[in-house]
Amino acid sequence: MADVAESERRILVAVDEGEESMHALSWCLKNVVSQNSKDTLILLYAKPPRAVYTALDGTGYLFSSDILAAMEKYGAEVAACVLEKAKKMCKDLQQDVKVEARVENGDPRDVICQMAEQLGADVLVMGSHGYGLIKRAFLGSVSNHCAQNVKCPVLIVKKPKTNAGSK
Amino acid sequence: MADVAESERRILVAVDEGEESMHALSWCLKNVVSQNSKDTLILLYAKPPRAVYTALDGTGYLFSSDILAAMEKYGAEVAACVLEKAKKMCKDLQQDVKVEARVENGDPRDVICQMAEQLGADVLVMGSHGYGLIKRAFLGSVSNHCAQNVKCPVLIVKKPKTNAGSK
Repeated sequence: MADVAESERRILVAVDEGEESMHALSWCLKNVVSQNSKDTLILLYAKPPRAVYTALDGTGYLFSSDILAAMEKYGAEVAACVLEKAKKMCKDLQQDVKVEARVENGDPRDVICQMAEQLGADVLVMGSHGYGLIKRAFLGSVSNHCAQNVKCPVLIVKKPKTNAGSK
Repeated sequence: MADVAESERRILVAVDEGEESMHALSWCLKNVVSQNSKDTLILLYAKPPRAVYTALDGTGYLFSSDILAAMEKYGAEVAACVLEKAKKMCKDLQQDVKVEARVENGDPRDVICQMAEQLGADVLVMGSHGYGLIKRAFLGSVSNHCAQNVKCPVLIVKKPKTNAGSK
């Protein structure tokens, strides 16, 4: 536990729909994962609770099961799509790295912290502004929360701003 | 600028008196710096403003120049001692890595963010609880501030708690 061999690390990367998390993954593949290593990269997609569920919780009003099923299906498709994209990036940038993918339900803040612990991650990698502006307003900054609560090292990667000349 | 070659990175490591920052440095040397790389490790010690200066600012009262000089000397000695210890760790863990050391005066939050920008750091490495409990009460969490304000990737490394049986 104390001395993790450099070549057998479990690197947990939180991915979401945003470009920033893909940039974080790419940075990690180029800068943290070493070639010919036995690192395992665990891609984690946290399916955040739909804000509408929360907003309607306790009012006695419920969506029809059709609508709920459609929303659930949409969420699962987004997760699959994000993870496919992430796995492709791993293959493109570090052919040999072992990759696992997981989808977990819940508030991304809790899910990421729990999984880091449960999977015995040696390092957690994430973007700084995941889960979109609106969800962030509900959830607070995911990366802030994780940096404070996760026990393993946390690498927060921001997407560099393009040098657009706009004001 | 966009594509930094993996082997020529500028890794900025914020060090202080605490064990946690030394642990962060050690983790970085083992997990981020690759052998035979051309990485440059920049050790940065931020000399925080003495709380007493601030407390007495504007009251018209001043310490004698002797006391101020002694405090200044003590601060410089601590900085030198921390940097020596850090440099030794670099030599012990990654013989070949290029190491630079810097001391900068000011609030660590500002100093670290400014230097990350100014030195074109590719990644900033730091502990999560630097600068002691009391200073943190004045300054707020340095790592939080830097994670939010520094543009480059930030790696926050916590010192694992020893499994002491105390309650």
